[in-house]
Formats: sequence, structure tokens, C-alpha cells
Amino acid sequence: MMSIRNRKTIRKYSDKIVSEELLNKLLEEAEHTPTMGNLQLYSVIVTRSKDGKEALAPTHFNQPMVTEAPVVLTICADFRRTSTWAENRKAKPGYDNFLSFMNASTDALLYTQSFCNLAEGEGLGTCYLGTTIYMPQMIIDTLKLPKLVFPIATITLGWPNEEPNISDRLPLSAIIHNEHYEDYTPEKINDYYTEKENLKENIQFVEINKKETLAQVFTDIRYTKKDNEIMSKGMIDALKKQGFI
Amino acid sequence: MMSIRNRKTIRKYSDKIVSEELLNKLLEEAEHTPTMGNLQLYSVIVTRSKDGKEALAPTHFNQPMVTEAPVVLTICADFRRTSTWAENRKAKPGYDNFLSFMNASTDALLYTQSFCNLAEGEGLGTCYLGTTIYMPQMIIDTLKLPKLVFPIATITLGWPNEEPNISDRLPLSAIIHNEHYEDYTPEKINDYYTEKENLKENIQFVEINKKETLAQVFTDIRYTKKDNEIMSKGMIDALKKQGFI
Repeated sequence: MMSIRNRKTIRKYSDKIVSEELLNKLLEEAEHTPTMGNLQLYSVIVTRSKDGKEALAPTHFNQPMVTEAPVVLTICADFRRTSTWAENRKAKPGYDNFLSFMNASTDALLYTQSFCNLAEGEGLGTCYLGTTIYMPQMIIDTLKLPKLVFPIATITLGWPNEEPNISDRLPLSAIIHNEHYEDYTPEKINDYYTEKENLKENIQFVEINKKETLAQVFTDIRYTKKDNEIMSKGMIDALKKQGFI
Repeated sequence: MMSIRNRKTIRKYSDKIVSEELLNKLLEEAEHTPTMGNLQLYSVIVTRSKDGKEALAPTHFNQPMVTEAPVVLTICADFRRTSTWAENRKAKPGYDNFLSFMNASTDALLYTQSFCNLAEGEGLGTCYLGTTIYMPQMIIDTLKLPKLVFPIATITLGWPNEEPNISDRLPLSAIIHNEHYEDYTPEKINDYYTEKENLKENIQFVEINKKETLAQVFTDIRYTKKDNEIMSKGMIDALKKQGFI
């Protein structure tokens, strides 16, 4: 059985080269991921150059894996290629709207995860950078993305040079609902989160951040309302500039 | 090597039961997919009942696999559980915004694709229903999704009872850009799309639809500007009602 139970996010990479042959094999294999109407509404920008990685680093808060990884992949929602195809074939594309952005983002994210499953199956290490949608305009400018193309995911890739612990996850019952959604009572929240809150590393995480609860580390420091609102505005502005809304 | 090269979307399922044990094993294994800050911003609604499937069917244009599949999974972007956790832990959640919707959608879609890769690895057949975001309010009402929960993906699941052909895909060069985006010229479009356009099934597809080009089938019939704009509005309205914008 294929398994991802022991997967780990890898942020440190060895000097070993990721061959173009292997990379292309994985990128091509991932193309067999389901896609809307078989349109493949995504593009992948492959960054291997030092200059390219240094240009991308600030858009990802200078997290070191961006410049240290041998390969950085920026996966984009892309209705440009399909629209250009249509324009070249006596057809009028109508994909400058929010639904089309969501359709292309969906294709891009499904592709991304298949790629990661495949790459990790070969022993490669990956790190998913959620920062991609935090300051998208900087990435758009850096990678010269035209209208109807939007960066959705970034993967740093290389051969692992660390052995981090496996992350904990919530019990399955925490994420599953039968037939319809059943809301979370305080009792259920205790059932689902107490084990996580009592992990040694999370107790330390709360202490280091001088907070009272683990949840406060997330709401007050890591993902704050203020930052979320500023970045929501930035993302919406970028979606307008790229012609999706 | 793990491979998805021969995967096929399966829309017809045998009578064989998908055991709860196997389903739960796969749903749990998929939890090891990367997730933002290890928050797991998704929920899965499992529909097995006849009534439940019949209630969902119209939201998916009554595609027969919704009622015929033994299992229907609706994967939702979910900031409700995390927000409830925060409120129960003296923390003030700030996830009623567009960026948070995108973060949770990302988590949900990555989870969905890992689940599909794992399920297909076990021999199960899946069909991804892109219709999930076409009329989301109907799904929200049917599954009783509260605020900060939004349906993002639907998977019908069962043991295969058909052997469809493998779908074609664009050549890798069509989706890859080195260092920065290179726009698509008419020559490149010809290079990348001619093979697809000349496939026997696509020539027939154009004829059946009484169109001149394959692209026109997409722009004029399958994914029209008018439909996209109506459904964009419906999705944005639903996002407002669910508290994300």
C-alpha cells in the first residue's frame, strides 16, 4: 500500500543535484491528476538559478529553504494558456471571473499535491510554502506572470538533509461528519485538541511565545486577524490586476 | 515507484461495499498531507445514505454517479473548528476573511488529492466533481454547513465497474516555464494542442456539438462566460453568507 503516514516536511537539503530528468518525470507524471474538462488549468515555474531564488525569497519572508533548496516550484492557476488557445481557434474565452480563478486554483492545488506525493515516493523532500498567497503581487512581478495567471503554491524540493519528527494530527473523528455537519461542542473540542495541547513541543511553543494557550499562539502571533485582513486586501487587489475579478 | 500514469476517472461502480474500516484508514492516512500551521483547515462530510445522495444530486446537475456511488465525500474548507477551539481557549480567532478562505481551501484540496491518490492506490475508483463550487449554497443548506465552512470538493468513491480509456494530457513543455513565465505564441499553441485536437474522440466531440473547433466546445457549451459569471456571483454570495468575505 502507498503510505504517507511517515512523511515529513523537509526544509534542509543536501548538495545532491535533483536531475532534470527526474524532475521532469515527476512533473509529467503529476499531469495525470484530475483536471477540469481536461484543460489543465495550471503552469509551473521552475526556479533553479541563484538569482531567481534570491528574487523569490522576500516574497516568502526570507525563509531559508527558498535560497537553499536546489529547486523551487511556483505552481500557478493559469487560464491564460487555455484562453490563448481559444483565441487562436475562433473561440471567445470567458474566464476573467472569480469562478474561473477557483477552477484554475483547484487544478493547480490538486496537481501540486500529486506532485508532492510522487516526489516523496522517490525519497525527495518537499516543503509547502503557504506564503505564496500572502504577497502574490511580488511573485507576479518577479515571475512576470501575465493576466489570468496567479501564483497558488510554492514547493521547495531537494534530497533531505534532516530527519524531523513526524507531525501530530487530529484524530479522524475530529474532521469527519456523517451525512451532515455536526457542530463542535466544548466537550468535543476537549476530546479532539487535548492530546495536541499536551505535546511537549506544544507546551514549549506556548511558553516561548509567552502565551497562556496554544490557540493564542495562532490567533495572536502566527495568523492574526490584522495580518489576515491586510493580506486579504492584497490578494484581492492582485486578483483584480490579473483580471480574475 | 508510485505511479498515477494509468489512473482513470471512474464513474460506474460495482455493488461491492466500501468498508468503513478501509474508508476510515484512507481518510486518516490522508491527514498526513501538509496543512497550514498543522491546523487541518478542512472537514469531510461522508454521505452513504440513499436520502443523502439524492439530496446532493441536484447540486451536481444530477450526474448519475452521485446517487450510484456507494460513498460520496464532500470536502469542506473549515475554519469553524479552529475558531471554536480558539474561542474555547481564551483566544480571539480572526479568520472571517478571504485569505483565510483561501488557506482553508488549499488545505482541503491538498487533502482531497492525497486521499484520491491513496484510494486509487488501493484499487478504488474516484470521480472529482468540479460542480461543488457551482451551486455551493445548495450544498451548504443540504449538509447544514455553519459559518466558516464551505464546500470545496466532492469525490464519488467505489470499486470500479468500468474500464475507461486513459485521458490524454498536454506535453510537459506546455505547462513548464523556466525561471519566469514565457507567453504562448500561436506557434507554441499549435505545438501543444494539435495532437489533442486530432484525437479521434475530440474530432467526434466537435462534430457532435456542431462546432468548428474543439476550443469552441469549451467556450460556447461546456464552460461559457455567461454561466461562469452567474456562478461567480453565486459563489461570492455564498462566501458572504458563510462569513468569509
